[in-house]
Amino acid sequence: PRSRLGAPQVGLLPSGPRDHITDVAGVSLGHCTLDAGPVQTGTTVLLPQPGDLFMHKLPAGVAVINGFGKSAGLMQVQELGTLESPIALTSTFGVGTAFNALVRDAIAQVPQLARSLPTVNPLALECNDGWLNDAQALALQEAHVQHALALARQGGAGLPGLQEGSVGAGRGMSCHGLKGGVGSASRCVRWQGQGYTLGALVLANQGRPGALVVDGRRVVIAPPAGGPATERGSIIILLATDAPLDARQLTRVARRAAAGLARTGSDYGHGSGDIALAFSTALRIPQQPTAPMPAVALLHEAALDLLFQAAAEATEQAILHALFAATPVTGRDGHRRLTLREAAPELFA
Amino acid sequence: PRSRLGAPQVGLLPSGPRDHITDVAGVSLGHCTLDAGPVQTGTTVLLPQPGDLFMHKLPAGVAVINGFGKSAGLMQVQELGTLESPIALTSTFGVGTAFNALVRDAIAQVPQLARSLPTVNPLALECNDGWLNDAQALALQEAHVQHALALARQGGAGLPGLQEGSVGAGRGMSCHGLKGGVGSASRCVRWQGQGYTLGALVLANQGRPGALVVDGRRVVIAPPAGGPATERGSIIILLATDAPLDARQLTRVARRAAAGLARTGSDYGHGSGDIALAFSTALRIPQQPTAPMPAVALLHEAALDLLFQAAAEATEQAILHALFAATPVTGRDGHRRLTLREAAPELFA
Amino acid sequence: PRSRLGAPQVGLLPSGPRDHITDVAGVSLGHCTLDAGPVQTGTTVLLPQPGDLFMHKLPAGVAVINGFGKSAGLMQVQELGTLESPIALTSTFGVGTAFNALVRDAIAQVPQLARSLPTVNPLALECNDGWLNDAQALALQEAHVQHALALARQGGAGLPGLQEGSVGAGRGMSCHGLKGGVGSASRCVRWQGQGYTLGALVLANQGRPGALVVDGRRVVIAPPAGGPATERGSIIILLATDAPLDARQLTRVARRAAAGLARTGSDYGHGSGDIALAFSTALRIPQQPTAPMPAVALLHEAALDLLFQAAAEATEQAILHALFAATPVTGRDGHRRLTLREAAPELFA
Amino acid sequence: PRSRLGAPQVGLLPSGPRDHITDVAGVSLGHCTLDAGPVQTGTTVLLPQPGDLFMHKLPAGVAVINGFGKSAGLMQVQELGTLESPIALTSTFGVGTAFNALVRDAIAQVPQLARSLPTVNPLALECNDGWLNDAQALALQEAHVQHALALARQGGAGLPGLQEGSVGAGRGMSCHGLKGGVGSASRCVRWQGQGYTLGALVLANQGRPGALVVDGRRVVIAPPAGGPATERGSIIILLATDAPLDARQLTRVARRAAAGLARTGSDYGHGSGDIALAFSTALRIPQQPTAPMPAVALLHEAALDLLFQAAAEATEQAILHALFAATPVTGRDGHRRLTLREAAPELFA
Repeated sequence: PRSRLGAPQVGLLPSGPRDHITDVAGVSLGHCTLDAGPVQTGTTVLLPQPGDLFMHKLPAGVAVINGFGKSAGLMQVQELGTLESPIALTSTFGVGTAFNALVRDAIAQVPQLARSLPTVNPLALECNDGWLNDAQALALQEAHVQHALALARQGGAGLPGLQEGSVGAGRGMSCHGLKGGVGSASRCVRWQGQGYTLGALVLANQGRPGALVVDGRRVVIAPPAGGPATERGSIIILLATDAPLDARQLTRVARRAAAGLARTGSDYGHGSGDIALAFSTALRIPQQPTAPMPAVALLHEAALDLLFQAAAEATEQAILHALFAATPVTGRDGHRRLTLREAAPELFA
Repeated sequence: PRSRLGAPQVGLLPSGPRDHITDVAGVSLGHCTLDAGPVQTGTTVLLPQPGDLFMHKLPAGVAVINGFGKSAGLMQVQELGTLESPIALTSTFGVGTAFNALVRDAIAQVPQLARSLPTVNPLALECNDGWLNDAQALALQEAHVQHALALARQGGAGLPGLQEGSVGAGRGMSCHGLKGGVGSASRCVRWQGQGYTLGALVLANQGRPGALVVDGRRVVIAPPAGGPATERGSIIILLATDAPLDARQLTRVARRAAAGLARTGSDYGHGSGDIALAFSTALRIPQQPTAPMPAVALLHEAALDLLFQAAAEATEQAILHALFAATPVTGRDGHRRLTLREAAPELFA
Repeated sequence: PRSRLGAPQVGLLPSGPRDHITDVAGVSLGHCTLDAGPVQTGTTVLLPQPGDLFMHKLPAGVAVINGFGKSAGLMQVQELGTLESPIALTSTFGVGTAFNALVRDAIAQVPQLARSLPTVNPLALECNDGWLNDAQALALQEAHVQHALALARQGGAGLPGLQEGSVGAGRGMSCHGLKGGVGSASRCVRWQGQGYTLGALVLANQGRPGALVVDGRRVVIAPPAGGPATERGSIIILLATDAPLDARQLTRVARRAAAGLARTGSDYGHGSGDIALAFSTALRIPQQPTAPMPAVALLHEAALDLLFQAAAEATEQAILHALFAATPVTGRDGHRRLTLREAAPELFA
Repeated sequence: PRSRLGAPQVGLLPSGPRDHITDVAGVSLGHCTLDAGPVQTGTTVLLPQPGDLFMHKLPAGVAVINGFGKSAGLMQVQELGTLESPIALTSTFGVGTAFNALVRDAIAQVPQLARSLPTVNPLALECNDGWLNDAQALALQEAHVQHALALARQGGAGLPGLQEGSVGAGRGMSCHGLKGGVGSASRCVRWQGQGYTLGALVLANQGRPGALVVDGRRVVIAPPAGGPATERGSIIILLATDAPLDARQLTRVARRAAAGLARTGSDYGHGSGDIALAFSTALRIPQQPTAPMPAVALLHEAALDLLFQAAAEATEQAILHALFAATPVTGRDGHRRLTLREAAPELFA
């Protein structure tokens, strides 16, 4: 069976209606793409839910599959188990600027930040797009992040976030020596008569040339002319679910992204910052101690097997979608990555 | 291409001469198998190196892929990065007895233990064989562990440790609803003109029925008549290498066992204690502060990509070997697991 | 101000009525002490709550302050965040026997263990009493653990668990070169009009001679005649609270035991296995997925500051109680530790 | 006995000649202080060693004592165990700008970054100075970081880095409701005839009003007029040593900063991001796999007890130095913190 974009449908669970992270209600995305000669980069902002994330946080967990990366904000999620900011994906050297943009946005939303309230924990996650993009230019500006964030806030309108491949933060990314980028997928599970959705969004920039596996089969492609032969790229994997889970359970879910990633041929290479973050939209944790804490029955731990499977399958599927959606990009010094379609047209037949 | 036992050869790296963890020089194994009606269990002891492990320890690292398990001794390895004891694999309820047996053996080897010297850290790692084995019988005796340990000490003689499948600790284990057990494999890499070997030994008891993947292809088998449908089994993965690595590097290597495991169809199920431990035979750390510390040049971190690949491939291969080697076992209450050969004879054609 | 036993009252929070972990309702203890010439050891069993812990678990968290130790069962608590077994404290080489005793007790309580139900996760935590006790004798028998457990089950009757010092697991323990052992304390906090209690039980066997600090003042004592001069002992710290906290929050609480420990003069020595485990009695997590999950409003994260303070203070106080309660013990090879009362009588004036 | 600045000399080990982190050869500091009405902030840059840190890295380890913080760069240190960048301390909302400044500096030093070489891992560590400083102004500019970095590069000349208290990143910091800031200290140990130095640099912004402990004695001060009553501040603790230790050992050393911190009255409050990072100057790890790896005999693990003690004592002493050196600062909205000298003049008598 085929999924979107001609990619094979992997795994055993059914996809959601769009096979996209936005199948989880309330999740929205915005991209800002920079395409200017040697500058081939951008940012993708995921808004986990509408409304005030700082005052009403979401439970979240992190899995550091391989910590060769510069992402900001993960430590506090690991300690407190909450998400209180939109998530900006970007190029490695864009982390500082994305941090600043998210801080300024948070101040605009919550004027008492760093005054009567604490500071905010911005999440700026990154991969290195330095092969196609002139990373030294530090081209990303705060306005780009604000633009992507504004699009995410507009949410469904035109669904700009449904774009995949060489858009937003995915613009300059490479994957297994091919053109990588942004991809998404979702899976549906049932537990005790109730349906739940789990969606994945990946920024796919990982993998050695020649190691790519599509649906269990290694894809033999001609080695790229130049470019690093080792994993130096990283992948960011965001998982959203509407199942009521707490931070510890979400941490366990996030770890299963590693299973899906492995099935696409990655060994979590030394130089690859492979990070997964999972959050639930089913409950909100108030910032203020005076607000009532939610009294929610979480899913029983035994239900996690289904969500683990969903996380692994959605991650694998989202990586395939990134590769199948990618369009050609020529960047700095004439660097170019073949798309999967160019390198292995037989997969699209 | 085919590996031993008719299993497919997975991955891209070459196997060692025996495709077995004993390809790493000095590693030896011994099994003790209990086969008595409802008692279908045993122990497998891995001796990481000959000689006194307590006074001259090996660097080691641990990856807790999923911590639903009762293994003893991992915490100290995580803190100190050293292995100072043989490793006993066994049934869950055998951990206490294996602990005692290893303590008594250590005292016999090092009479000043817990006197002028500290205590020893015995490693007793487990999976739950309660479907085939009457675990409540606590059948494992210290003498069984001593027997397996003595066989391991005899080392190469007859190479009893080369046995795989339903032997030793593998006797009562199940894997994806089929008969599991002990399996092993190895891979060879080259770095800067030097060859290194990495070997894996698995106690394979993991996986949901119907989720098994062999060489990228899902194996469709009839569901088992009874028995748990969820992952409740666990897998222990031991990785040995002769490459000079320290504990931090070995921890990174151990984490890559998760990639090989995922490729056999596991999502690291909720109820599955999935543990990997990696050690190096290339250097020894003295117990006594008066002994000189080794001044060894470790492998450069960039070399880890090769060892990561070897760890993932050897783990996947070792799981296949466990399944391909398994022989039928009938245990408590007439419980029986089909072997892979019975359930999917076409794989052996 | 003075606490029990003549010890100074440390910190700012008020103690509970008994200044003991049993101030947390439902927590009970039992000791079994072995006093036979060179055998000076024992076990202390903490029963976190009456009733079936396996079928209705308690949330729990672990802090590995220094992982030089052989305690069993911590990994699964870290993964699943639940306590499902009584906790046995004992000598290092008693871990295997305590594991076996707890397994057999759990089978007696839950006959379907390792059959239609999974296995149990016994908690056997240890310190090395090898200076006073002939650890090589492996004197602890399963019956001793059963005896202590039976006493704990009798609970309040005569309150045998209120004993401290050189009893139970504390029999052979040393602390800062003096006689150590079992100690306990409690602290009370108020949050949003509600009162909560946090209690600590320590097995105090840590600390360098000459480094002891009592209530902020270093205690100068004559160096012991023989015996190790470095931290080689370990401390186990159990924290119980009736505040509704989940596993992540309890992990944070457990980490604060390190603050109290530091204030008694410990640097968490290299050879000291310093472990803290915190659990809440306010909610139960069902083993069976068919049972309803609790829908409990947890305490707001901001309330943790109070419980952090309580954990630090109760830990410090419990260590002092262990030292102030200790009675003289002469053990193997005529080894003897001075009590604090003998070494620093001025503290008792 | 008294230390510098009139502070009590804490602990048992001797201080280095300056009782300052610069007692570790090659470590230098630079401050840039912003003092402009409501803008009371700044940055302090620590240069761990002269020369090219990216091409020749230092071993390093991290302890997240409490992860309520936004520091950037720690994840990669935890994974790879190396330090490859100067360390900028600053206000929370300055992290993005400090990240950018360090990236631009690294590009200037290593032109092939993000081209033929990977990207760099900048370390920007923070505390929240929002009580005195108008954090919403995001006043820190890249030029300020560059200025502090340039001063650090000048090293000994005039030793600007020896300043403590309300300078650099310490400008707007508070500690236990008093004026906090930058402080430093060092301790000397001997092992097997060889001397080693360990130095601490703290950015002290932690602690509840009324909880401060100086040399074992609680300091009773009038509660501050306004300002948060809970720990909301954080502390960054940098530890440098010339002892040959690897990343795992340095991680263990870093954890002992928690002991020193506890002795000043902190419980590692919920809202306090308490982070320690330790590095060794005794060996360099080459970026390039073609360069030879160091073959250095590390210190035996038993030597760590001395370095643990040094880490705990130097941290406690450095916090005292920050408090004893602090000068009055009036910031946004007329906020002012008393100095310790003002609040407890008897300590200075």
